[in-house]
Amino acid sequence: MADLRVVVVGAGGVGLSLGGFLLKAGCDVSFIATRRTAEILKKNGFKIDGIFGKMEFRDVDIIDYKEISRPDYVLICAKTTANEQIADNLCRIKNRLSNSKLVVVQNGWGNAEKFLDCFEEEKVFAARIITGFYRKALNEIEITVHVDDMVVGNIFKKEISFQAKDLCEALKEGGFPVRVSLDVDKYLWAKMLYNCALNPLGAVLNVEYGRLAEKPSTRKIMDRIIDEIFDVMDAAKFETFFDTAESYKKEFYSKLIPATAGHKSSMLQDILAGNKTEIDSLNGVIVRLGEKYNVDVSYNRFITHLIQFFD
Amino acid sequence: MADLRVVVVGAGGVGLSLGGFLLKAGCDVSFIATRRTAEILKKNGFKIDGIFGKMEFRDVDIIDYKEISRPDYVLICAKTTANEQIADNLCRIKNRLSNSKLVVVQNGWGNAEKFLDCFEEEKVFAARIITGFYRKALNEIEITVHVDDMVVGNIFKKEISFQAKDLCEALKEGGFPVRVSLDVDKYLWAKMLYNCALNPLGAVLNVEYGRLAEKPSTRKIMDRIIDEIFDVMDAAKFETFFDTAESYKKEFYSKLIPATAGHKSSMLQDILAGNKTEIDSLNGVIVRLGEKYNVDVSYNRFITHLIQFFD
Repeated sequence: MADLRVVVVGAGGVGLSLGGFLLKAGCDVSFIATRRTAEILKKNGFKIDGIFGKMEFRDVDIIDYKEISRPDYVLICAKTTANEQIADNLCRIKNRLSNSKLVVVQNGWGNAEKFLDCFEEEKVFAARIITGFYRKALNEIEITVHVDDMVVGNIFKKEISFQAKDLCEALKEGGFPVRVSLDVDKYLWAKMLYNCALNPLGAVLNVEYGRLAEKPSTRKIMDRIIDEIFDVMDAAKFETFFDTAESYKKEFYSKLIPATAGHKSSMLQDILAGNKTEIDSLNGVIVRLGEKYNVDVSYNRFITHLIQFFD
Repeated sequence: MADLRVVVVGAGGVGLSLGGFLLKAGCDVSFIATRRTAEILKKNGFKIDGIFGKMEFRDVDIIDYKEISRPDYVLICAKTTANEQIADNLCRIKNRLSNSKLVVVQNGWGNAEKFLDCFEEEKVFAARIITGFYRKALNEIEITVHVDDMVVGNIFKKEISFQAKDLCEALKEGGFPVRVSLDVDKYLWAKMLYNCALNPLGAVLNVEYGRLAEKPSTRKIMDRIIDEIFDVMDAAKFETFFDTAESYKKEFYSKLIPATAGHKSSMLQDILAGNKTEIDSLNGVIVRLGEKYNVDVSYNRFITHLIQFFD
């Protein structure tokens, strides 16, 4: 049995699921949740079902930041819009985190950097996850789809990525496929491309991803968004698994979209629920990099402004 | 009494209203309408009310293209999306139009050009209208707002604009304020700027014009759309009443939007009704001019593609 002590920040679909797998592996897991979720978790625990089977958890340990005490890992599973506040809270208890590793399990690029005030680069890991966690209720998660292993690594010092091996082993022991990778940055950029092209456009037009690829008009928009991201990546020396925008588009239209043609945008859910969207961690990043490196990012800026209208 | 013979093509808000004022002035007016509108007009006539008073018309003359016989004027009051078909129909009876003048009463730029196969430039006039014609029913129009005189002129040979004077006099006699202008092109471009900035964006976001000016995000989008239009106008040597994008924006935000803050986009109505929008005569024109003159029109292209998604 694994005996890691883990704090999970954010008890949504990702946080509860990863926490659940770790609990199943025997880890000591505590959750930091918003008040409404915390209450229901304390009272009723939580359930996971779907493609990795059924699990139920009672007597869930819900804590506050001030109760954090020298964990092995802190997993950031909240929305990126909460990062500033989470980083503030963690900085206040910095002395109790000196031996902890942080793993940022979030969409977008530039999230890990937000925690460098209280964690050294050696301690900050990032994870890419392309598993569908559908939150049926505040404490009920259905895992609907799993495209690839979760991938964990250190984006600042790639060569020390293996130091997150114990966490990966524990998750695997709990039943969730995970691997360490020296290329987590490349995985994150591949996911950025997919998300930046589809998520905000699907939200603005309120249609499934498949429809966006069917129409020449929206294909042209996505093509240009992807072109601009490759231009920015070239300028900033970021890498992914595709050398050119054209080779990515081939994969995007022939495989990625067909596999998720019925999906609808998560930003649309945020907009409809009146929540702040994650646009600043997605296309907003491209806009800032474009400005920094003097690259034309007009389409990414336009779609960022469109989504910000709702924020 | 005026004794012009006028054919009105398109019996919507604009067509019925202009036709009504001409009928009131004693002109011989015939309408070309879609089948459903034609039937109801034949049976029940039509009504106009609102700021220019109440009028009712019975025994309305509904004709087909083949019944057109040497009118003094043909007024194009249909949606711009119908222009190709209308031009085809008019070309077939070209010999009976050799003494007729055409007046294009439509949104956008580049509409008059569509009729040059069957009319000489000297015969093709354009009109700018900023009056609100609300179509309560297929045969009932309420005139809700009137911002300025209708303005009529020839955009190909500006100096002969006065040749449309008899039509303007007849409309005035019927009670509608109209004037001939040597600068109808400048009026059309001023209306283009307003429409291109507000109409598609208001449709995509489904909000009133006032909201678009309140939020910094949508202001930035509109600013850039306006900047690009001024760049294109400079390159193509088109003119309006504002020398710079900045001077237009000042008027736009301080006067034009406040005066129409509660308005919603006409394109939104088209999209909701499943009709083709007029985007190709608005931002679509900017895109084509940008390509022709090698001017960056990214924002106009993006919004054009967004609207075309619904077409």
